[in-house]
Amino acid sequence: MFSSIQMPKGFKCAGISAGIKASGVKDMAMILSETPAVSAGVFTSNQVCAAPVKVCREHLAYGMARAIVMNSGVANACTGEEGMVAARDMAAETARIVGCAPQEIFVCSTGKIGPQLPLTKIVAGISKLFDEALCTNVQQTAEAMMTTDTRPKVSVAEFSIDGKAVKIVGFAKGAGMIEPNMATMLSYITTDAAVEREALQRLLKQAVDASFNRISVDGDQSTNDTVLALANGAADNAPLNEASGDWPLFAKEFSRVCFELAMMIVHDGEGADKFVTVNVSGAESDEAADLAARAVANSMLNKTAWAGSDPNWGRIMDVLGYSKARVVENKVDICYGDVPAALGGARSSAPQEDLVRVVSQTDFVININLHLGEGAATVYTCNCTEEYVRINY
Amino acid sequence: MFSSIQMPKGFKCAGISAGIKASGVKDMAMILSETPAVSAGVFTSNQVCAAPVKVCREHLAYGMARAIVMNSGVANACTGEEGMVAARDMAAETARIVGCAPQEIFVCSTGKIGPQLPLTKIVAGISKLFDEALCTNVQQTAEAMMTTDTRPKVSVAEFSIDGKAVKIVGFAKGAGMIEPNMATMLSYITTDAAVEREALQRLLKQAVDASFNRISVDGDQSTNDTVLALANGAADNAPLNEASGDWPLFAKEFSRVCFELAMMIVHDGEGADKFVTVNVSGAESDEAADLAARAVANSMLNKTAWAGSDPNWGRIMDVLGYSKARVVENKVDICYGDVPAALGGARSSAPQEDLVRVVSQTDFVININLHLGEGAATVYTCNCTEEYVRINY
Repeated sequence: MFSSIQMPKGFKCAGISAGIKASGVKDMAMILSETPAVSAGVFTSNQVCAAPVKVCREHLAYGMARAIVMNSGVANACTGEEGMVAARDMAAETARIVGCAPQEIFVCSTGKIGPQLPLTKIVAGISKLFDEALCTNVQQTAEAMMTTDTRPKVSVAEFSIDGKAVKIVGFAKGAGMIEPNMATMLSYITTDAAVEREALQRLLKQAVDASFNRISVDGDQSTNDTVLALANGAADNAPLNEASGDWPLFAKEFSRVCFELAMMIVHDGEGADKFVTVNVSGAESDEAADLAARAVANSMLNKTAWAGSDPNWGRIMDVLGYSKARVVENKVDICYGDVPAALGGARSSAPQEDLVRVVSQTDFVININLHLGEGAATVYTCNCTEEYVRINY
Repeated sequence: MFSSIQMPKGFKCAGISAGIKASGVKDMAMILSETPAVSAGVFTSNQVCAAPVKVCREHLAYGMARAIVMNSGVANACTGEEGMVAARDMAAETARIVGCAPQEIFVCSTGKIGPQLPLTKIVAGISKLFDEALCTNVQQTAEAMMTTDTRPKVSVAEFSIDGKAVKIVGFAKGAGMIEPNMATMLSYITTDAAVEREALQRLLKQAVDASFNRISVDGDQSTNDTVLALANGAADNAPLNEASGDWPLFAKEFSRVCFELAMMIVHDGEGADKFVTVNVSGAESDEAADLAARAVANSMLNKTAWAGSDPNWGRIMDVLGYSKARVVENKVDICYGDVPAALGGARSSAPQEDLVRVVSQTDFVININLHLGEGAATVYTCNCTEEYVRINY
């Protein structure tokens, strides 16, 4: 699927089976920069966060990184001091093999909360990643990141800065538990562009807010969410910051990679087969619009109605009414695509079959206008099928 | 099921098929007091609320009531001015037949949001209720209130006050959309006790907060939630208020009826086959405990884990972490029944099979101690099965 995609200059990557999950399934990945890369990171806002997230936060303060090493199968969350030691050991062992300081290593884990990391397998996996699997092809790495994902997620941008070819390659895993703050979501954005550290951190934050933080699968948030960006400068451009003439181009491409990955995550929501864009406009503020859009996107009654291709705008009215956004019932317009379902809070004259036609699509838009102000927000979500329940048994 | 249960003195009731739903299914009910009854009411806090709720709020100000008339099949919500006229007509027609002021009639509707009330059928149904079906047996009335409920819900209390026999009979419908504020929930509490109006209103509010507002099925809230209490004084006791010597007895029995009805609603959650009690203690405040307990009860990942008999305490930790309650990861204890799953935020040494045994039960308790203060709260909820998704297609 992505086997023709090569990493940005100066990056290598690998994905292998370390025996953490069922035999033969890839469960560890590594991304390595040949030289220290400027690094940026955004993490879960959950009060309960995994040991690797705590370690990443510490290491991010160092500012430069050589590698990201990750495992799936075990989240190393709620594992106490033993889990912290394991996460540090995972970084130290990677640093030893790479030949750098432990602070130059980011560690990530995803999987079940509670069990301790199988450190012997992890250590053996790190050797195997480094010794046997490192290459410049992204396919195996993207596969090794998957948990309940049905397909690997990679997005690429290539463009020129200062006449130098620049490349961005982003990876992500997602599937379930995707809500406001990127739950059980890992994403790594690598680029050979030279970027100043603080500018990269600000850009990553903005790009995440406009992408991973705008998607919702099931309203749950994870302990392990991590988005990391590494910029190693191998493209040899003059280091970029917000004042650079090429910054808008770089920022646009970087943000597009994040957005594409976020959309891939929603399209691959656990058990989902419909992609739904919820636009709210006319709210009292952007924050109110966001509250309204998230409430609609997260409602199980809406998600199940979409699964049944039922243009049940009454359920949307109900959800808007109990959202934390101010709503005045007789001002609300709800359209499925361009077809009005409710105008002024009551049923429109549009034929039911026109509404059904929109909701029967695998990808449709719901436009809600609260007619109270200028606030607007968009949330991307998916339906909920019986398959979701089966997956999460 | 309830065919041996008789109404309190001076009350009659009826349930019939008015042809609003599929042919033969009961879809209208009436509760009639032979004399004006002191009335109290608690309604949805949804900003979008149904026309009958608006009419009930107006009529509650009148203070005395003769009858409640309700239909299922159509919610008369989001129906604009036409819906308001229909709700008023439904009250006026009932008042005409009963021979009282329209303000002495409460009207309720439940069903699909959006469509207009089929007023011709409603008017014919009111005649039929009054002319043919009125009796003192509760069975048909409870049946007529059902929507996706699989069984009627009735609770009874009988006791003595001032040497007079007093009876309370409560009805409820529930099933889906049951969350913080009693969504798509209708309940009527009738008693022949004489109770002062303001005392009855305060008692109803307290009893609802401790019962219907402590249950959660799917996190959605409806536009039509209504709990009404009618006390007609036919028992001939001295009118009760909080200063009465018998008030504690009356309040306890009244509250128990509400609580039993609430528990019946959760036990009959749409597609649910497990009843789960979530106790949170040790929170910074009762409010924080409530936020934590509701977050755990509403999480789809928890509800699906319970469906699979999986004691996945890690998902509970995750949810506590993103709840609005303050949580310190390494202080949290989680027990399934008496079996500790996590102590100090990490896995306990209890054997997995002991945890599985608890979660495999159809009725179990989760005890969470945050160890941060004295705040406590309990929420009653159910699991989520594939059947829930099928019902809501």
